Amino acid sequence: MRATVIHGPNDIRIEEVPDPSIRKPTDAVVRNVLACICGSDLWAYRGVAAREVGQRIGHEFLGVVESVGSEVRGFKPGDLVVAPFVWSDGVCEFCVEGLQTSCPHGGFWGSPGSDGGQGEAVRIPFADGTLVQLPKDAASDERLLTALLALSDVMATGHHAALAAGVRPGSTVAVVGDGAVGLCGVLAAQRLGAERIIALGRHEARTAIAQKFGATDVVAARGEEAVAAVKALTGGVGAHAVLEAVGTEESMRTAISITRDGGAVGYVGVPHGGSAGVDIGQMFDRNVALRGGVAPARAYIPELLADVLSGRIDPSPVFDATVDLDGVPGGYRSMDERTALKVKITF
Amino acid sequence: MRATVIHGPNDIRIEEVPDPSIRKPTDAVVRNVLACICGSDLWAYRGVAAREVGQRIGHEFLGVVESVGSEVRGFKPGDLVVAPFVWSDGVCEFCVEGLQTSCPHGGFWGSPGSDGGQGEAVRIPFADGTLVQLPKDAASDERLLTALLALSDVMATGHHAALAAGVRPGSTVAVVGDGAVGLCGVLAAQRLGAERIIALGRHEARTAIAQKFGATDVVAARGEEAVAAVKALTGGVGAHAVLEAVGTEESMRTAISITRDGGAVGYVGVPHGGSAGVDIGQMFDRNVALRGGVAPARAYIPELLADVLSGRIDPSPVFDATVDLDGVPGGYRSMDERTALKVKITF
Repeated sequence: MRATVIHGPNDIRIEEVPDPSIRKPTDAVVRNVLACICGSDLWAYRGVAAREVGQRIGHEFLGVVESVGSEVRGFKPGDLVVAPFVWSDGVCEFCVEGLQTSCPHGGFWGSPGSDGGQGEAVRIPFADGTLVQLPKDAASDERLLTALLALSDVMATGHHAALAAGVRPGSTVAVVGDGAVGLCGVLAAQRLGAERIIALGRHEARTAIAQKFGATDVVAARGEEAVAAVKALTGGVGAHAVLEAVGTEESMRTAISITRDGGAVGYVGVPHGGSAGVDIGQMFDRNVALRGGVAPARAYIPELLADVLSGRIDPSPVFDATVDLDGVPGGYRSMDERTALKVKITF
Repeated sequence: MRATVIHGPNDIRIEEVPDPSIRKPTDAVVRNVLACICGSDLWAYRGVAAREVGQRIGHEFLGVVESVGSEVRGFKPGDLVVAPFVWSDGVCEFCVEGLQTSCPHGGFWGSPGSDGGQGEAVRIPFADGTLVQLPKDAASDERLLTALLALSDVMATGHHAALAAGVRPGSTVAVVGDGAVGLCGVLAAQRLGAERIIALGRHEARTAIAQKFGATDVVAARGEEAVAAVKALTGGVGAHAVLEAVGTEESMRTAISITRDGGAVGYVGVPHGGSAGVDIGQMFDRNVALRGGVAPARAYIPELLADVLSGRIDPSPVFDATVDLDGVPGGYRSMDERTALKVKITF
């Protein structure tokens, strides 16, 4: 089959790779219908995150089950499924608790020895613990399928940020970052009943989506100016819940600074600035909490799926470009240059 | 009257200062019965935290109301009261929420222009928002009075750490630090129903108190060795809830390292190591949260008071030395040299 591989910084290629097959009785093979490129893939694309030469890449996909191992109980060939961005066994203490990202048998799509998500098919370890069933009739609805694809990572990650930040009905929320995760964070905050949602971002096409998703205010400034603007919008005290969806030193510093005393930063931006930006002294006096991390998407997909199917939320607008497999290298380029927000891949 | 003042590093003196008086109608004056020296006072004593020459010091005391301003409703002369380590107006949005440490009219005893707690009497701003009534018959019970004195800071702070770390019935808890706050953290965790409490500390007299307070295990190692020991005691996964009651870079690093994935560090050690020790990358992958800060003691005193009066908890063993006012400079020396755990001052 054909799949996306990374050979080094700015070097994404589509290559012929071995067809996936059932290796263990708990495996399944899924033939992809949709996949996409993640903002976090750009860390590898830019050479900031190390990858082996020729390593597979991509971790968001949905498709049709092609074959299952002898011990798979919940899925059969022909089922339409979505995968979270981490596989997990579904039975360990962490999986049972809903923290599947800490499953000792879990792993990240595209890590050495596994299939990446940006290929024609994917071998799924622990299919019963990993995959989530989708209604078959969704396959004929392109808009709905696109919305469901967002469950594999960005919508689940935005939801994790909102939960970690403690968004409740009536909360004042601020979202740092106007990428797909930040925008999904706005949608998640709106879904959880936030009264006011301040989106921080400077890219107008993106902040327009934030407003569509429920943002009540947009702050286009950065750094100290952004802090002052959020303070001005919140009677000088800041937001109860702040979603950090960037992962840089500056974004973390901004997030902590705009959190109301006693509030929390829900951090989901993959950190690339060490501990810089986390000023524990500033947090201490104001009782600001820091919660979050890698989102256990598998735990959240069932409830978010129900809301996508009912039409209560529709994250599909975060996808603003579509390519086929041959167009993937160009898709990375577009996202790196910020001419595309999030690129969908069709098969 | 006579009170404790600090003139510089290692220079604590007892001096004649102006008698406190009612300056505002919401003030009260309290004549001290008991006060004490805090581990956090040592930061000033050691010159790590800056103080003005001749500044007052001390922030934990209980005593008898001597006079009240015309607007004070809840207290009258003769009442036995305890003060939390921060005064607060009791009516602002933060006070109403129970985060009195963020009261815009609040302040810390001993800050310039205010009385410190280690003196014969104290002017109390916002008496109705600050003080908590104690039963008068407690005055004749030295052990009980001592236990009640712990509510002003260390017991409330230990409780804050336990809440922030998310201690619940059945939790496995680890407590970093064997000072009075760490020991009160053990007691607070036991009170909240922790099943297992691992106390990290090397001072045998202190870890003996930890065991009396409910610690089920003691780890006498530090750094990597301590991390390995706690992992070994917890099936390799760490503790659900970790109380950080030191405030150094090493203690924070240890605390994060021994937290189970999805768990939280409740941090109450006054930070003196910048952001060092907070490895956001390590927290991210494991969904470790960081919560806490300066404890809103005023919010916690009523419920803790009830449990001290009923005998359910008795934090009095954290006081292992007693001095009169003239003995205070020696008390600082003893705590600095770690020959005393926590020094009580009688008047």
